[in-house]
Amino acid sequence: MLDAQTADRIIAAVDERFEQQIDFTKTLVRFASLRGNEAEAQLFMAEAMSERGLVVDRWKIEIESISDHPGFSPVAVAYDEAYNVVGSYRPVKHSGRSLILNGHIDVVPTGPAARWSRPPFEPYVKAGQLYGRGAGDMKAGLAGSLFAFDAVCAAGLRPGGQIFFQSVVEEECTGNGALACLQRGYTADAALIPEPVHESLVRAQMGLLWFKMTVPGDPAHASGAYTSGVNAIERAWRIWVRLKEMEAEWNADKSSHPPYDAHAHPVRFNLGKISGGEWVSSVPAECVMEIRVGVYPDWTIAHAKQQIEARIAEAALLNPGTPAPVVTYHGFHNPGYVLKGAEEPERILRRSHQTASGAPLLELLSSASTDARILGVFGRIPSLVYGPTCTAAHGIDESVDVESVRRTTKTIALFIADWCGVYHASDDGDVI
Amino acid sequence: MLDAQTADRIIAAVDERFEQQIDFTKTLVRFASLRGNEAEAQLFMAEAMSERGLVVDRWKIEIESISDHPGFSPVAVAYDEAYNVVGSYRPVKHSGRSLILNGHIDVVPTGPAARWSRPPFEPYVKAGQLYGRGAGDMKAGLAGSLFAFDAVCAAGLRPGGQIFFQSVVEEECTGNGALACLQRGYTADAALIPEPVHESLVRAQMGLLWFKMTVPGDPAHASGAYTSGVNAIERAWRIWVRLKEMEAEWNADKSSHPPYDAHAHPVRFNLGKISGGEWVSSVPAECVMEIRVGVYPDWTIAHAKQQIEARIAEAALLNPGTPAPVVTYHGFHNPGYVLKGAEEPERILRRSHQTASGAPLLELLSSASTDARILGVFGRIPSLVYGPTCTAAHGIDESVDVESVRRTTKTIALFIADWCGVYHASDDGDVI
Repeated sequence: MLDAQTADRIIAAVDERFEQQIDFTKTLVRFASLRGNEAEAQLFMAEAMSERGLVVDRWKIEIESISDHPGFSPVAVAYDEAYNVVGSYRPVKHSGRSLILNGHIDVVPTGPAARWSRPPFEPYVKAGQLYGRGAGDMKAGLAGSLFAFDAVCAAGLRPGGQIFFQSVVEEECTGNGALACLQRGYTADAALIPEPVHESLVRAQMGLLWFKMTVPGDPAHASGAYTSGVNAIERAWRIWVRLKEMEAEWNADKSSHPPYDAHAHPVRFNLGKISGGEWVSSVPAECVMEIRVGVYPDWTIAHAKQQIEARIAEAALLNPGTPAPVVTYHGFHNPGYVLKGAEEPERILRRSHQTASGAPLLELLSSASTDARILGVFGRIPSLVYGPTCTAAHGIDESVDVESVRRTTKTIALFIADWCGVYHASDDGDVI
Repeated sequence: MLDAQTADRIIAAVDERFEQQIDFTKTLVRFASLRGNEAEAQLFMAEAMSERGLVVDRWKIEIESISDHPGFSPVAVAYDEAYNVVGSYRPVKHSGRSLILNGHIDVVPTGPAARWSRPPFEPYVKAGQLYGRGAGDMKAGLAGSLFAFDAVCAAGLRPGGQIFFQSVVEEECTGNGALACLQRGYTADAALIPEPVHESLVRAQMGLLWFKMTVPGDPAHASGAYTSGVNAIERAWRIWVRLKEMEAEWNADKSSHPPYDAHAHPVRFNLGKISGGEWVSSVPAECVMEIRVGVYPDWTIAHAKQQIEARIAEAALLNPGTPAPVVTYHGFHNPGYVLKGAEEPERILRRSHQTASGAPLLELLSSASTDARILGVFGRIPSLVYGPTCTAAHGIDESVDVESVRRTTKTIALFIADWCGVYHASDDGDVI
């Protein structure tokens, strides 16, 4: 446990660097690190780690190196530019526990840029909020981890355990970036992921499944009235309605799936993409829906898939003469994660949060998912998710609360020092 | 009126050339003359006209030459390859009435080619049906006009009036191809369009409107459950449901719109295309629907647009905080057409059909539309639509009934001779 004076020094060191931290975060936001376009931002992260004396490991993810792993999610995009970056801190004096500080560099698309108050990749601070795509999800956290480490060092201390700063790709569609870190051998006694979760600790997160449903119709001339043709778009919609009913059924059963009995609406099906038809005056021959499904952590993905496929097949029978829909999986394909057996890191996080923010640490059950799912389930690393308050993640005018970033950075700095232990920098000369 | 012997000679001449006619039609089907890709097929048509001694006019449609015309439909595609072809027959002895034989070269997309029994642009005859995209709609008719003319000539006769063989583009999306013929100065005492209408005469056809509806949502993280975000796809669907209600209301009011009081379901709204969303785990920010609407012939397009826009605006209020949908027009934009004041060509068509097929000519009210709308409404040319029996126009395994093609070609040949009048080929030497 840190003494009060040490904690104060660390906290003060966060404050001293905070303006610089926000500038660094803004620089990160300026990289439009959409899926497939993360490489430049990852070079910047590698440079930032290198400047801190970390040993930098930057590698391109090879699908074949992870595709046999049970945590692998099927991939529908190219990995030509999918670089992970890990910066390793290795103490001269190994006195404490090791830690992974994981974050993702990828951001989701912006929607129509014209609807943003300012261009989504031109960050700015207004009324205490830092705006920009990825500002909250999760570049503030990614930057915060490095600056928390900086603060510990600036306080004249060095962590006593190894720390692996992971900047990964693919968090927003598969988790294969975090998986590739596991496969490369990175592990630790605990992990912390500063996702934007309102300064709370995530107790549980849902499993995630993406699927693509290709629904055939029976094309015909648009003038055929109701006498001919099966509109593939309308048919897909009828199936979607049945899937929404299943979402309601799954939610109604939440009492069988603690801890989600305490959540208002744990299961969320999202119709995220649609395309169909090729000629306005033809009854459409095909419609493709892409759907995101939340899965209870006590279910296997296989179980969820079975239910989904059965419901689609049943709904498709409304048009018995038309070919059956085809379901494929092209993204998230992982079970959920409930944080258990992590009493010690939890205790330290709780204490760090109380010291940094003056308030008790709240917990939350998430209807979303994070890479803690990968590190926790497949790496068996107790994985804490804790980070700042964000507004409109995946939305228009996404922003992160600047003072919340400050508080959570302090918490993470204290957590590093408390979990890994610290020794005086003067004891080992010039490690960093 | 043709004497029986002349009619018999013409009919026999159709039979003599019929195998060649089907071969020619197959050749036409082999051109995948989808929108934007008609130029090669049009060169073939120009060649076929030239071989018949017709004066060939082939020109690229310039949008600016027709865009001020009240019959112009807005265009969303390039006209770089949009060539019309008109072959003119000019008699040495002007003894009769002039005629336009109009048909379109463009075909609609095929849908998934794998669902066709054979590739859609590899025509074949099986069990009396000629299969292939465009076989019925309307390459059989386009070929039939030329072979009908051939039969008249082969019978030792020459038509006494000018005939303009028009092979136009853009029938399937705007009608601007036929409009460009009008604008270029082509007119006649009557027009006949051998669209595949089951060997009937089209008494009336609907107006047509295409519109594109861009529906904004409020993007959010997919995990937001029902607490945040407005899914643009679901919002668009709610509007579509209201538009379908309007379709039902318009149909319910058909008694106010004779002759459509006699039609089962005159108004057809078709949701022909949809696209929306950009990330499976984001609540979609935008959805675009492209819709085809049938409009009563006694309505102006402006009136239809007003009703559509009002219904969309009303339905959009279900999400008052989200930006309003935007409606644009990008295709068909024409009123309907009721065949009137065409007693004389109708009488001749009726007689020709009776002679060729031994059955009385039936009439139909179409929930579709053809270029007769352009020639009839804007060119004030009495425009008859009459052609063979087609199955699955715009569908999978489109086909045309071969014997129906034979019968309607005979009818058209007799119609040419009867409407334009004929003189003996020997009277003018070698005109053709």
